[in-house]
Amino acid sequence: MKHSNHLFYLENYAKVLLDVGLGLRSNDGILLSFDEVGLPLARIVVREAYRRGAKDVITIFADDTMNLDRYNFGMDKIFDDMPKFKVDYREQAFLDNYHSLYITSPNPELLKDVDGDRVARWQKCVSQATEPIQHYQMDNKVKWCVASVPGPAWAKKVFPELEKSQALEALWNLIFEATRMKEEDPVEAWKRHDVLLKEKEKYLDDNNFDKILFKGPGTDLEITLVKGHKWIGGSSKLERGDVFMANIPTEEVFTMPHAKRVEGIVRATKPLSLQGQLVENFSIEFKEGKVVAFEAEKGREVLEKLFAMDEGAMRLGEVALVPDDSPISRRGVLFFNTLFDENASCHLALGNAYGENLRQAQELSDEEKKKLGMNTSMVHVDFMVGGPELEVLGIKEDGSQVVLLQDGNWV
Amino acid sequence: MKHSNHLFYLENYAKVLLDVGLGLRSNDGILLSFDEVGLPLARIVVREAYRRGAKDVITIFADDTMNLDRYNFGMDKIFDDMPKFKVDYREQAFLDNYHSLYITSPNPELLKDVDGDRVARWQKCVSQATEPIQHYQMDNKVKWCVASVPGPAWAKKVFPELEKSQALEALWNLIFEATRMKEEDPVEAWKRHDVLLKEKEKYLDDNNFDKILFKGPGTDLEITLVKGHKWIGGSSKLERGDVFMANIPTEEVFTMPHAKRVEGIVRATKPLSLQGQLVENFSIEFKEGKVVAFEAEKGREVLEKLFAMDEGAMRLGEVALVPDDSPISRRGVLFFNTLFDENASCHLALGNAYGENLRQAQELSDEEKKKLGMNTSMVHVDFMVGGPELEVLGIKEDGSQVVLLQDGNWV
Repeated sequence: MKHSNHLFYLENYAKVLLDVGLGLRSNDGILLSFDEVGLPLARIVVREAYRRGAKDVITIFADDTMNLDRYNFGMDKIFDDMPKFKVDYREQAFLDNYHSLYITSPNPELLKDVDGDRVARWQKCVSQATEPIQHYQMDNKVKWCVASVPGPAWAKKVFPELEKSQALEALWNLIFEATRMKEEDPVEAWKRHDVLLKEKEKYLDDNNFDKILFKGPGTDLEITLVKGHKWIGGSSKLERGDVFMANIPTEEVFTMPHAKRVEGIVRATKPLSLQGQLVENFSIEFKEGKVVAFEAEKGREVLEKLFAMDEGAMRLGEVALVPDDSPISRRGVLFFNTLFDENASCHLALGNAYGENLRQAQELSDEEKKKLGMNTSMVHVDFMVGGPELEVLGIKEDGSQVVLLQDGNWV
Repeated sequence: MKHSNHLFYLENYAKVLLDVGLGLRSNDGILLSFDEVGLPLARIVVREAYRRGAKDVITIFADDTMNLDRYNFGMDKIFDDMPKFKVDYREQAFLDNYHSLYITSPNPELLKDVDGDRVARWQKCVSQATEPIQHYQMDNKVKWCVASVPGPAWAKKVFPELEKSQALEALWNLIFEATRMKEEDPVEAWKRHDVLLKEKEKYLDDNNFDKILFKGPGTDLEITLVKGHKWIGGSSKLERGDVFMANIPTEEVFTMPHAKRVEGIVRATKPLSLQGQLVENFSIEFKEGKVVAFEAEKGREVLEKLFAMDEGAMRLGEVALVPDDSPISRRGVLFFNTLFDENASCHLALGNAYGENLRQAQELSDEEKKKLGMNTSMVHVDFMVGGPELEVLGIKEDGSQVVLLQDGNWV
């Protein structure tokens, strides 16, 4: 009974990923990434994709063990070299109507004992090598969706008190709930949820706020928004009309901060798993949009390496509102996985901004976007600032204030 | 104890695949293909490859379930279309010093209930699309190696009387023996074996036979060899000097028949697993090198589709001698897997010939090779003709005869 329930929810999961996440249409191709624990879901995704008229599914397999062994045993020079033909391959796929579905199962501390210099160099190398194709996803020129399935190491991190198989079952259960797989018709449930997010999006856009203020324990931050910013919640759209949802789950409504107009201090309310390492209890201070100071009880060097990536890594690229009573947040569980934690909490992102957060993105050159205040970077790292004591205010051009979130929740 | 033995042999397997099969050198990249049952071996291969200075291992995952679902649920038109960017990707990798390691685990009857027309169309489509890059492997411009690991369906086919886990264990055991993994130093054992195959190669080359005759029950075939043919056994060589072994295991010494000078009839002595379907008890008759008649108790339509692929599919591209007392043959087991069965039996191949079987391949144009009698085709399909009653004769230009194999074994 238990087992058949699991399979039933897994089938739902595959359908939601295709029908809501990727918004799959006939003749679409898929670049499907997964690892060993994602294989059962990937198999269902493949079957359902072909049933829906997918023209091809390219499987991209990555493995924690192989990844670790590469860092531990590989020659030092290989962490600075990513061959161009790999980037060309992905670009050619994008141009040929392929879209990306990532079934991830991150171990939050996979790389904690690995040479951090290699990790940072490789991250930088990949970011630079893939820079020419990042716009396909960042600017919604292709459809993409990120989802997660639990692996043993991750499950043990979330439920350290349970033994492995119980921890896995508990995390599966949480994920099925957080992703609405237990609803009677999960695809419909996601469509209803999307309508609610679009209402929030419209309300915020109609107000056309000049600034957003975050106030809470250890946090006092004033974020000026880019002129012509657009709030986005839920689904995104291709120019040709396809609707997709880049994250399953998603509870956020987010927009674009001005890269040079962020002032004050912000305290993270959850740990951050970054590059396979944890950063805990950290604060960051901004002046004229730029990080001028930061501290962390654990993993400070990981932040340091992040800020060293490029100028844009020290500025904000996203501000996102999520109520403290979101279905994910209500579980009261720390996921150690940005995909879930960012949808349980207001958050900010360091690094690259999303073009879709500009109302007139299509008509603007990169230069003009930058001038408006859009941040660019090789990285995009979300960190959580929400919680039951957070107050978020919107300030209009005329100086009038609207309380958006009080005690962590929508007013 | 049993388990640790398995792991010990598996580690040996990985080392043999890298040190003997691929002849891996520092700075080589690897294109590593595997499926779920190959994953444990693939992981060891990755670790050992990085330890040996590999610059990169690209993992290529294929899955029987996904493959079947594609055939069963995919739109009809997708079996005629392979995007060029996939071929370009492989070519770019070859040009960038990547080499292919295939860890296969074929289910001999995977596609038996699938629309055969789709299978044939897809095979033709892939062959045509990859035609521009086939020479990299066929002419030893890159290193490549094919090996196999048992999966449940294959193991049950070989040992139908055993239950699944026992069948798997028995097939693992057979494969470890057939691949010399139980020898004290398997890498050294393979090097010794290579010396013996090279001696056979030299003996056959020194005799410079004009014709090879096969005589046995249902078989009476005269094969004229190409002028300037070269016998090959064991390892191959890149121009730059790297030594590799394209099959693990390998027991054969093979050369190039003249595409237009094969006369007589030949009876297959083992079933052939072709495109996921079995062909059993079949004979083929040749006239002026070309198939003029064929019959099969089972799977005749599979042969029919094969011969319809192109003109070259109806002519021979390889003649290979393997003694009936080879270590694989001695097990007396039918593997339903060409990699093993062809190394337990003399065999012939329909379709494309190997350039390395011409002494002066480097200096000859494709046109000149064809004129000499080299066969070309999109396919290359080995079928087994050896057995305890087979006699193989070599006939020199002056008409003198040498008995090469008597009662199936080297004289």
